[in-house]
Amino acid sequence: MENEREVPKIVARDERRTPREGGDAVVSEIVASGREVMRKAGVAAHDVVAGGCSAPGPLDHVSGVVIQTQNVAGFTNMPLAARLTDGLGVKTFLDRDTCMAAIAEATVGAARGAKDFVYITVSTGVGGAIVTGGRMVRGASNTAGELGHFPVAFQTDATRAVDDDIPRCGCGSFGHVEAFAGGANLAAQFGAGGAGDVFAAADAGDERASHLIIRAERALENLAVGVVNALNPQVIVVGGSIADHQPGHVLDPMRRAIAERAFRTPASAVRLVPAALGADVGMHGAVLEARERVAGRAAWFL
Amino acid sequence: MENEREVPKIVARDERRTPREGGDAVVSEIVASGREVMRKAGVAAHDVVAGGCSAPGPLDHVSGVVIQTQNVAGFTNMPLAARLTDGLGVKTFLDRDTCMAAIAEATVGAARGAKDFVYITVSTGVGGAIVTGGRMVRGASNTAGELGHFPVAFQTDATRAVDDDIPRCGCGSFGHVEAFAGGANLAAQFGAGGAGDVFAAADAGDERASHLIIRAERALENLAVGVVNALNPQVIVVGGSIADHQPGHVLDPMRRAIAERAFRTPASAVRLVPAALGADVGMHGAVLEARERVAGRAAWFL
Repeated sequence: MENEREVPKIVARDERRTPREGGDAVVSEIVASGREVMRKAGVAAHDVVAGGCSAPGPLDHVSGVVIQTQNVAGFTNMPLAARLTDGLGVKTFLDRDTCMAAIAEATVGAARGAKDFVYITVSTGVGGAIVTGGRMVRGASNTAGELGHFPVAFQTDATRAVDDDIPRCGCGSFGHVEAFAGGANLAAQFGAGGAGDVFAAADAGDERASHLIIRAERALENLAVGVVNALNPQVIVVGGSIADHQPGHVLDPMRRAIAERAFRTPASAVRLVPAALGADVGMHGAVLEARERVAGRAAWFL
Repeated sequence: MENEREVPKIVARDERRTPREGGDAVVSEIVASGREVMRKAGVAAHDVVAGGCSAPGPLDHVSGVVIQTQNVAGFTNMPLAARLTDGLGVKTFLDRDTCMAAIAEATVGAARGAKDFVYITVSTGVGGAIVTGGRMVRGASNTAGELGHFPVAFQTDATRAVDDDIPRCGCGSFGHVEAFAGGANLAAQFGAGGAGDVFAAADAGDERASHLIIRAERALENLAVGVVNALNPQVIVVGGSIADHQPGHVLDPMRRAIAERAFRTPASAVRLVPAALGADVGMHGAVLEARERVAGRAAWFL
């Protein structure tokens, strides 16, 4: 791991809504956005050493193929790195958003210097990335790290079905951390437009909103205890918009649960800290990863 | 990982009950047992290259110290490797039982050739060990792998306390896989002497026993789905006495849950298989680990 680097400087930015007309439309829009950024920054494609693309998983960062996503129509077995490399004329590297965020936090953020750390994002969804012994855990088909899809609840009354009263996850399963604590699921369960509305309603005394938030906290608590007992990390970095805006409903309960319920040895070895790089963590990670991969220095996370 | 080895040949054995009078008594009994085995095998201490000791965790395999155990009185910060080395006159290496079992399964058993695998034991307790990218996950203080202590349930009715109707774990927490599926907990919840009685009662039509077993299966299902999504292993090896005797209540539901509920890519990459080495897996692992460590060839699991 390279630890002496600085947070990349963002010299231009361009944001767009994701088209809903299918994969080709999304690729075209990313290419147009990339070109616009290069124009704003006053650089030509042949001046750009590499591009980084942070995308939702599961995907294969080595082949550069998005395997499936829940939120982007037409992104099934989409060779996104190759399509962007062609479209932009810039060698582009793909990785899962949470892996790129973890690379940024490891290199210039809150996990600097840690050889064993876990990155968790609590946002629209709940995602993760795992680094152990100084290497990112990728698994047999490069999809490891999906901590938001660890099931942390089931119907314990055996006379009822296993998923009775247990929320469905967007992935099709149930009882996952994301099903309780992901912003999209919280909002849907409350019937609101966004998770912010649920927290606001709870603050205004709405009991149903409070109950949903208590359940979300309990799910995050189980995840925190499980991660500490199973992985014994030195640092757990928690980012994402909900963690950033509601630390009292995310970081605090996770910390409390670790202190109260995890094994003493790993509990006293771990710090649970907020992400250091804010909403731009994905961009920073994409830049850092692209820079490392194009220079052949990416051994710790490939 | 060394994969061309053979299952060690057991030339003598000696089994004893664990004394309840404290740590020194346990150490003395292990030393006496080790001496008895050397006598039976007709070897002197100076002929023995190394000893291996498989013990419950959490422990530090590098310093050879048992940090704490739930089941052995007096084993808190016990320098067991040094005490046995002194007592036996044989250089003795300590590791957690599940890590030694995983080393055996990786080297000469069911995980042979797999660089990403998870070992799970379902026995008196539920334990685990994680290997990713060809290296065992040890964590920041060498206690990683305690998959039995991943919480997989909580009270989802937020008007009630988080642990209402959720079984306590021996470790002091609640909702852990072990709290549902560990043999000691199953037996205690049923009021029986052993887990075998619970399975026998369920087979004889006892509804309460059946319900406890259904809950245990659900906990193991959550663990299986979570491990596949979070770690993307190529193989999950499931051993332990309950797994061996009740595969229909352990391996089958875990396999079914992976097929039905895990992400498709990691689900199709994984095989969930029974342990290959049976009840002697701990001894095989202890021998293999001791042989590797004394020869300085233990990089992948240290």
